[in-house]
This record gives sequence, C-alpha cells and structure tokens, in this order.
Amino acid sequence: MTNGVKHMKWWGWGVEGIAFHHEDKPRFAPFVLDKVGLDVNAPTEKPPAFEEINVPASQLTDDIRATLTEIVGEKYLVTDDMDRVVHTFGKSVRDLIRMRRSQLQRVPDAVLYPANEAEVQAIVDAIVAADAVLIPFGGGSNIVGALEPRAREERVVLSLDLGRMNQVLEIDDEAGLARIQAGALGPALEEQLNRRGWTMGHFPDSFTHSTLGGWIATRSSGMQSDVYGDIADITRGLRVVQPGRTLVLRPLPSTSTGPSVREMILGSEGRLGVITEATVNIHRLPEERVILAYFFPDWPTGLKAMAAVSKSEADVLVARCSDDRETAFSFSTQKKQKGLKKVVTEGVFKVLERRGWDLDTLCMSFIGFEGSKEHVKRQKEIVKKIVVAHGGMLIGKGPGALYDQKKFDTPYLRDFLLDRGAAADVSETSAPYSKLQTLYDNTIAAAEKAMAEVDCRGYIMCHLSHNYHSGACLYFTFAIADMSEDVLVKYDHVKRAIQQSFIENGGTLSHHHGVGREHAPWMVQDISQAGSDMIKDLFAAVDPKDNLNPGVIVHTGRPGITVISADHTDPEELAR
Amino acid sequence: MTNGVKHMKWWGWGVEGIAFHHEDKPRFAPFVLDKVGLDVNAPTEKPPAFEEINVPASQLTDDIRATLTEIVGEKYLVTDDMDRVVHTFGKSVRDLIRMRRSQLQRVPDAVLYPANEAEVQAIVDAIVAADAVLIPFGGGSNIVGALEPRAREERVVLSLDLGRMNQVLEIDDEAGLARIQAGALGPALEEQLNRRGWTMGHFPDSFTHSTLGGWIATRSSGMQSDVYGDIADITRGLRVVQPGRTLVLRPLPSTSTGPSVREMILGSEGRLGVITEATVNIHRLPEERVILAYFFPDWPTGLKAMAAVSKSEADVLVARCSDDRETAFSFSTQKKQKGLKKVVTEGVFKVLERRGWDLDTLCMSFIGFEGSKEHVKRQKEIVKKIVVAHGGMLIGKGPGALYDQKKFDTPYLRDFLLDRGAAADVSETSAPYSKLQTLYDNTIAAAEKAMAEVDCRGYIMCHLSHNYHSGACLYFTFAIADMSEDVLVKYDHVKRAIQQSFIENGGTLSHHHGVGREHAPWMVQDISQAGSDMIKDLFAAVDPKDNLNPGVIVHTGRPGITVISADHTDPEELAR
Repeated sequence: MTNGVKHMKWWGWGVEGIAFHHEDKPRFAPFVLDKVGLDVNAPTEKPPAFEEINVPASQLTDDIRATLTEIVGEKYLVTDDMDRVVHTFGKSVRDLIRMRRSQLQRVPDAVLYPANEAEVQAIVDAIVAADAVLIPFGGGSNIVGALEPRAREERVVLSLDLGRMNQVLEIDDEAGLARIQAGALGPALEEQLNRRGWTMGHFPDSFTHSTLGGWIATRSSGMQSDVYGDIADITRGLRVVQPGRTLVLRPLPSTSTGPSVREMILGSEGRLGVITEATVNIHRLPEERVILAYFFPDWPTGLKAMAAVSKSEADVLVARCSDDRETAFSFSTQKKQKGLKKVVTEGVFKVLERRGWDLDTLCMSFIGFEGSKEHVKRQKEIVKKIVVAHGGMLIGKGPGALYDQKKFDTPYLRDFLLDRGAAADVSETSAPYSKLQTLYDNTIAAAEKAMAEVDCRGYIMCHLSHNYHSGACLYFTFAIADMSEDVLVKYDHVKRAIQQSFIENGGTLSHHHGVGREHAPWMVQDISQAGSDMIKDLFAAVDPKDNLNPGVIVHTGRPGITVISADHTDPEELAR
Repeated sequence: MTNGVKHMKWWGWGVEGIAFHHEDKPRFAPFVLDKVGLDVNAPTEKPPAFEEINVPASQLTDDIRATLTEIVGEKYLVTDDMDRVVHTFGKSVRDLIRMRRSQLQRVPDAVLYPANEAEVQAIVDAIVAADAVLIPFGGGSNIVGALEPRAREERVVLSLDLGRMNQVLEIDDEAGLARIQAGALGPALEEQLNRRGWTMGHFPDSFTHSTLGGWIATRSSGMQSDVYGDIADITRGLRVVQPGRTLVLRPLPSTSTGPSVREMILGSEGRLGVITEATVNIHRLPEERVILAYFFPDWPTGLKAMAAVSKSEADVLVARCSDDRETAFSFSTQKKQKGLKKVVTEGVFKVLERRGWDLDTLCMSFIGFEGSKEHVKRQKEIVKKIVVAHGGMLIGKGPGALYDQKKFDTPYLRDFLLDRGAAADVSETSAPYSKLQTLYDNTIAAAEKAMAEVDCRGYIMCHLSHNYHSGACLYFTFAIADMSEDVLVKYDHVKRAIQQSFIENGGTLSHHHGVGREHAPWMVQDISQAGSDMIKDLFAAVDPKDNLNPGVIVHTGRPGITVISADHTDPEELAR
C-alpha cells in the first residue's frame, strides 16, 4: 500500500474494523441455531495470521521484471507476498475458504500499478511479447473466480491493478455524460460526480469495493437499475487496450454499426483487453429519494405485485421483494427494539394477525422512488393501488432507510459465518416473469436436496430485484453449516444444483455477477454451443496466445489448460 | 408471386397504386421550383417497362438446383427474371436509379422461399458445401446496399426470402413476450398481436415493407423508440441458423454471460447466419394515444426543447422536431385549406407574427403520448411547461394525427422526384446532445459545399427524433436536382460529405439504417481499427469461406473481393 492504492483485507470482505456482530440482535443466534444448528456464540475458527499463509514464491523472471519496471517504475511493480496474495482471488466463499486454508496454488508473480493508458498499452504489449499472463484487477470483489490465475499456469502471471487510474476526467453537462478512468472505486467516482451535482446511479452490493472497469467487465447491475439501467445501458463510450492497439468506442446514445463491439467488451472479464476508461450516463442528483417498505401475505403474491409494479406506468427506482425465508432472516437481524418503536412494530404484527395473515409466510418488500416531489408523490400513488390490489400493506420509511443505509454491509456476514462453521454465498439469475415462480420452487427444492445429499444442514433464501419489461432477477443466498475438510466439495455440489436449476427453468447462469471460472460450465447450456463458440473465436482472434486472463468464460483450447466442466469430471476443479 | 409472398414493385417503393402526387398541394410545385429549380409539373422520365431491363442470365448450376429443390420443393426455388430482379437491390436512391437504368451487374441466380427453420438449416449447409453465396431477404427495404450481390461475385448467388415464415408462434401473456418468425412484415405481425390485445410498438418508417428479421439484422429503430426501445432492446431471444448449427438464445430480460452474443447478431446483416425467429417484448395496447404538434421559433430552440423533454420526468412516446428547412417543406406538402381550417391556420400564423416570430425560422415538432388517460394528461402537463419555457407553442392534434397517418408514405416521394429529375435519399446519425447543433451546422454546410462542387442545385433538411438519455438521432433528407449520366457520382460525392461530417462531429455513421456496403468505408473511423477487426474476425470465424452475404459491414479479406474504401479509390465503387 506504499503506492497509495488500498485494498480489501486479504482474508475477507471489506476493511478492518467493520464486521457483522449480533450482540444487539437478540433473535439472530436463535434463528441460526434453529435453521442450521449452528451456535453463533461459539466461534470455532479464526482467520489465520498472514504469517501462517504459505505463499508460493514469485516466478517473475529478471527479463520481464526489467521490461515492466521500465514501464511503470520500481515503486509500481510489487512482488511482496501480501500484495500478491491480495491479488490472487476475488471474494467468493470459495476464495475465502481457500485463503483461510492457505490453499494458494498459483499466485500472481507481481502486481503492476500503471499510472495511465500509455503504461497499460506498454504492459500489454510487453506481456504478449514475453508470453506471460495478465489479469486485470479492479476492486477485487469478484465472486465467480474471474481473478485467479489458472492452477497449472506455467507462464509468468501479472496482476494489473488499475487503482491509480481513478479520476473523473471530464463531465459533459449538456449530454449528461462523464468520462471516468476504469480504476475508480464506486465511492470515489460518486464523490467526484456528486461534488458537481451529478450521480451515475450505479449501486451494486459491491459498490464500496468495486470499480467502473470491473462493473463493465462483468456486466454489473446496481440496485437502482430499474431507473438507471444496467452497466451495459449506462456505458456509452469505451477505451480498451488490446495487444498492439487501442479499441476506441466514442460515446453514442445508440448506433447501427454492425454487431456491437461495445457489447462485446461488456462482460469480457479481461479476455479482450484492459478497459482503461469509459464514458457513462450521469444524472442530476434527485430532489427527493425515498425507499418504502411493504408487506405481502406470501411470496407468490409478492412476486406478482413486483411484476405488476414493473409493468405499470409507475417509474420506480427499485422494486424488491424478499421471500418468506429472507424476510424471516431479516427480522432475525433486527436490533432489539425499545419504547415507541417496539410498540409500533408489535402493533403492526397484531393488525396483520387480525387480518388473518400467516406471519410465517410474510414477505417484506422495498420499493424506491426518486425525482421531484411531485413525481415521487405520483409514483407512490400508482404503486399504492397495485400493492392494495395484491393485498399488500405499506409499512413506512423506517425499514427502507435502514436497508438503504446497510445495503453494502451484507458481505461482511460471510466472514462472520466462516468463523462459526458455515459457508455462505449467493447465486442470482434472471428469467421471464412467467417462469419465476417455477424457477424459484425448483431451485429451492434442488438446493435442499443437494444439501441433504452431502449431509449438511443448510438454508437458502431469495429476493426479487432488478425489473425489466419481461422479467426480473431472482437473487438467492445460501449457506451450509459445514467447515469440514471437504466443505468446498459440498459447497460445489449445492452451488451446481442451484445453477443447473436456473438453466433448466428458463433462467440464465448469472444476472450480474459474470461467468468467470465458476459459471463457465453452464455457458453452452445457456447460450448454446454456437454462442459459446462465437465468444471463443472472438477471444482467440484478439488474444491468440491466451495471454489475457485465460480460462474465464469459455475454454479457448490452449493445450494443458482446463476449465471446470459441466459433467464435473475435471480434477482441477475440486482442487481449486 | 405464385408462391404467396408479395414484394414491393420492382422499380420503386411500395405497392402499385400508391404514389405521391401534388395536384391538391398548391404550394409544392413553387417550393421545389424555388429551392432546386425543378418543374414538377413536367415529368422528364418514367420508370422503364420490365421488358426493357437487361437481366443477366441465371448462373445456377444443375447440381445446386437439384440440391436446393430437394430441400424447398420446385415451387419455392424461383429463377424467373422478375423475382431475381426484385431480390437484387434494396430501395436506396442508388438502387432505384440503377434499376431504372438497367445497371444490373450481378443478379441472384435464384430465389429460395423456405417454409421453416429446418429448410433454412439445410439450405445454409448446402450453400456452404457448394461454396455458393446466400443473401437473406426480408421486405427488401434496405437503403445501405446490404442486399445486393457483389458486382464481381463469381460464385452462384442465392437470395433467401423469408416471406413464408411470417407467423406469431407464441405469446407469453405474463411476461409480455412473443415468439415471432423472422419473415413477418410489420403489418402482419402487428395484426396478429393486436388481435390478442398486444403491440410490439416498433414502427420504423419502412414498417409496411420490412420484417422482424430485417429489423434485427440492421439494428432498426421505430418512431416510438423513446418508450418501446430500439429493436436491440425489444429483441430478447433469437434463433439463428449458421453453417452446421443453430444458435439459440433464450429470451432473458438481462444476463451476464460474457460478451453479448445477442448483440453480435443484432446488426449482423446476414454475415453471421440467417435469423429465423425472435422472442420480443410486447405491450398491451394503450388506452389512449395522441401526437401533438408544437411550433418553436427556431431550430436551436427546438433542439434544446427536445433535449429538455427527453431529460425531464415526462415519459413521452416520441419527441421529434424538424428544422426550419423541413418545416418549410412540410408546409409545401399541405393540402389546400378551405373554410374554418384555413381561417384557423392563418390565425395561428398571425398570432406568431404578432409575437415577433420569424416565420422563416419556424420549426414544427411532434410529441407523442400514450397510456392511461391520467398518464397521458400528466405527461402533457410536464411537456407543456418545457415547451413554454422554450418559447414554443402548442398547435394541437390535427397535424400530429396527419403525420401519424401519413408517416409510412414518405418513401414514395423519391420515385416521384426521380421521374422529375431529382435524386433524393436520407442519412441519419446519432450523437450526444452537446454535439447536435455543431454536427447539424457542419453537415448542412458540408452537404451544400459538396452540391456546389458537383454543380448541382440541391436541398437538405433535417429532424431530430429517437431520444436517449445522452443524445438523439438527427435524420437528414437531401436531394440533388440532377438526372444526368453521372448522377450517382454526384450523389456519392454529397452522401460522402454528409457521412464524413457525421463522423468528424461526434456522430455515428448510422443510427438505425445499418452499414451495408454504403456505410462500410466509415466503420474504422466510427469504431476504430480494433473494433472493425473484431467484427471482421467474428465473421471470418463463423463464415470462413465468405458464403453469407459477403462484402457488407467490413471487408473480410477474401481475395478478389472489394468493399468501397474510405479514400474513394476503388473503381468498383462508382460502378455499382
């Protein structure tokens, strides 16, 4: 960190000093004990000390070191163990467990911190000339295995950290466009924009620890995508360094220039070059912004209500509904209530019981509104009618404000659970509205069956978010109460069952987390052999020697290189 | 047409029996005389009789005929001259002039009418095996040269007419999705959807004579794109027949599966296979729909007002504004007014003059509203404030209704003008709002300079339409009063000046007409060499022998094949 670029802590999510704790949440421990049999009051494990980690030595050659040092300067080519380890993985539970267990098969041999696009170009060209491997790195929040070197990679591996390229370069007030460097983290770029009255409006869960370049490279989607769009909609112009050349796509509102090269870079996860900057849609900060909480009597009703809101004339910022499982979990994380608040809460539940609601099937929903006071008022009115028509109930501003304030803290929970013997992670998909209920039912069933098959107590819960005209995203969170030697084998078994259910029920392998290595086995089932081949051919054309983050998305066929396969036969997979 | 598929007339736009005429438009003839010195009362030319056309003989080999007949049946492999000629060109002015002049260098050797996807697959495979050329054909409305065989093509050329594949196959009411065959013409598919209470909402100017597959293959955009989206947004699922395989993309609202294969097919103009069907977003027919006309004092104000509407909280169907030139042209095409209507119209102009407006700089705008009565009312109120703030004035429903009713008839004007010695066509672009005024000024200047350089009197006019967050489309219509031997050389000179101005002023080579052969020379300038190469590599991977509509979008480098070049040096270009 001597070079000014900060990273998440090496062993877990986020920064030191923030952690999930439950002392003020009296219902949390009983909930976890009841659901998965885990006593959260008795941590069984702790993250290891860095000294305990067995870090493979850097294989950087003198030649490559000399060439790269000439480009970035000595200070910005880093080979110390901490920096290399930080750049080895993303932050999936699989990454966190391997890190805790010192299972580092292949660690980058050096980390580069370029200052500008010219340096990136020189690095890419040098790496290709030396037949080394380059893995671009933004905030390091990836959870699909898109950042790690291949276990058996024999070439020199360099991690390219874009952290120094973090500036908003230019704002076009008239068009509502900003040119921003790819290495800018969410808070840094929003701060620079806010100062001038603008926002990009892109707030994925990983916001605090992910970058513009990372969002583009993985097709990110923020919680306000219903109004602001996915990153694919927000991104208009791009600059991407490729071997021997720079791809330049000017910021255009829409264009008819053949197959979309912009949409080839989106989701390319480093395989088509290094994104150095993007020109993105920006919006004036809204006059008013409010997120309201609603209750629905059960999940099928909540699902239908979200679809109805999305298809209505209401222009809502976010429409999100948790299933009964996630709702129950949310309640378990509430702080102990006192005084008036306690009375009000208890009153609400009494009203619901009087109305004949089954509190066990209750679903919590958040719907957000933004804009002028009048606009917000009007949208609230439209939504109110829909909620009432579906038998739902407005709860108020409190829970929405709390959700809004805490939404970026959820990932800390995983580290807390790891200390206590449970592996938790997330899997999300999208599908047409007509398929969501079946997809949900079958996915829950598949996950529970898979947990039973590996003899694990586990929990899975879900919410709907990110609405489009024809469908929405279903976002599952799941945990297994296991920290045995082969927990990753068990985790993989459950994760696979979930992914396979997505595909078989009309959903996609991922709505906004990307493919990486973890989802690659489902690519052919998702986009057909022809689609997978087209991507493969594109990668092979831009990067014929597999120097750019090889192994993610689709297998490009270089001998000796493997990607985990859908039939689970690749031994490399479980070893990862 | 014995096989039931109808086409536009071979020598011009649309169907027999509809034509532009000016007898009831007293101001039209004086306008044209004044602007370009043309006497429209004295036609100088007529479309030739078909018998006068010199149609090169079919080069279909017996082998290929036998193979293809086995696939589609004798009735659906057509080699008669009329059918072959109809499938030779699209309907650009360049196409129309060459047709009138019997300049048919390379005509398809046969036209195929497959019944289903299985036949399309067999055809594609047979064509690749025989090293022939296949050009998919929808409605034949293309104006960028995407349908014609290469002039020097030595292989057998087949036109693949999707006209028999025109059914709405399935409607998903809950999701708002319809699965539709690619050969369905606009009116046919809307009729099938309307019958069940749905609309796709996609209405390009070519609507009556273009197909779903054609829209997708060229990245079409309809007049209501501000609400319904471009075809790229509307298209969710796809089936595309490629050599030896079928690409299947399931209908997903949004997905994170690497580079978007869906967005590679969009705009592919036949180079990546034959689109056989798509699953598209559909919407319930609106309760109310109205298009209102507004006047603005001048074009810069009109431009600013459209941007303000687009950036406001109003949810408008269409926001379109003509420059003073197009407004004057529109007035010249008005029918003679009588009685009350005449009094009202004259009254409006008197009011404007009293308010100090310069009637020569007046700009006409149409803004459309759709939805529930209350929604429409609310949006009109928001727009009214913006219009007033920009010094504009509401005119009423009449002109909007007329525009709405006549909007698909404009292309007939070109044939009318060709009979009278003028070549007219259109060129459109899109750019950020901040660049529109300069782009406009420089494009008008460049076109007028180019017209002077080729000693032609000419006219160019423009409107803004298709708004996005950061910019909009500028749509130019231009004409040169020339029908000399080398009119196409002159036309090319003017067209080139316009295209070059688009690129140099931050616009794209086309907003929604595609690339074809006509815009291919600007691809590198638009998306950079790297972008052009990526597309080229993709084409080469899917179609290594250049069997699928070779020559459009980017040059794929097969020896002996040329695409017109940006430096104007290719002799094939002017010969086309």
